[in-house]
Amino acid sequence: MGEKAERTKEAILWEAGRLFAEKGFKEVTMSDICERTGLSRGGLYRYYSGTGQIFSEILSRQYTVSERLERRESARVILEDMLRNLEEEILEKDRSLSLAIYEYASLGNEELFVCLNQRARKRWVSLIEYGMETGEFRQVDPEQVSDVILYYYQGLRMWSRVLPFDRKTAKRYGDTVRQLLGG
Amino acid sequence: MGEKAERTKEAILWEAGRLFAEKGFKEVTMSDICERTGLSRGGLYRYYSGTGQIFSEILSRQYTVSERLERRESARVILEDMLRNLEEEILEKDRSLSLAIYEYASLGNEELFVCLNQRARKRWVSLIEYGMETGEFRQVDPEQVSDVILYYYQGLRMWSRVLPFDRKTAKRYGDTVRQLLGG
Repeated sequence: MGEKAERTKEAILWEAGRLFAEKGFKEVTMSDICERTGLSRGGLYRYYSGTGQIFSEILSRQYTVSERLERRESARVILEDMLRNLEEEILEKDRSLSLAIYEYASLGNEELFVCLNQRARKRWVSLIEYGMETGEFRQVDPEQVSDVILYYYQGLRMWSRVLPFDRKTAKRYGDTVRQLLGG
Repeated sequence: MGEKAERTKEAILWEAGRLFAEKGFKEVTMSDICERTGLSRGGLYRYYSGTGQIFSEILSRQYTVSERLERRESARVILEDMLRNLEEEILEKDRSLSLAIYEYASLGNEELFVCLNQRARKRWVSLIEYGMETGEFRQVDPEQVSDVILYYYQGLRMWSRVLPFDRKTAKRYGDTVRQLLGG
């Protein structure tokens, strides 16, 4: 795929993401996405066949760590990069996909979420095990800490639209994870 | 209110709670609640004027701790009672109100949730401060630990309908809270 096509796809995912955050999954149509991106119907369908495909692509783009672990980078440095990302996301209230995710899952797509959750968990468990091995993290139950990281984040994302959040709320999230890993 | 009326109200709240968990807030009607409870329309309206009133009453019934703190009970014992309750709730997938709460909040009831969140937070902060004072908990930032307790719980509740949960997931929640407080 050429560079221009890549840029168009990026723009579609970005604008669609905002729409899903605003309206949930069910109420967003391909026409809405055309309108936001300025693409024609033909232009949009060249890249995606429907809103479900766009939505699952948005969700599937996760931070990957495996290459960094293979390069034996510092577990602490990787952790800080991941936490910085998550802390930023927590503050992006208008891009919270919680409701859309819930709707999409309820439409019979539970399997996708089971799979995404397993991937996210595997990523965290592997980082935690690696950090314990290098001595940068203290000895913990990686599954337990991964649960905190994943569900605490989801709770924050869900409520960010309703409750008054500030940078402190996001920072406390990162601090708790750091403390659990022995920061 | 007589004992029979109390029992009727309990039954209404119980059945309505299950309906909200199944269908979200918007799609539940007073007729649905009549059907589930076996009450006539007149019978139901004697107690509640609409689904919003029933829903906010369900949400407002929170565990109270202030009397127990005044009686100077053990902070650890109170904590265990609260965690046992939460762990049970986490496993009751068919009573998760996350989607209904989100819908209800989006209908212009954000204030109620800000208020409920403040009450829940105040309750946890007061228990944590009390436990630090009696020396049963270690010195922590009560706001930080309350954030974990509240948002981690919300994340679990939201996902319990989609992801495969077991008793271990609920237990890890309690264990993390205990560890943070120095268990």
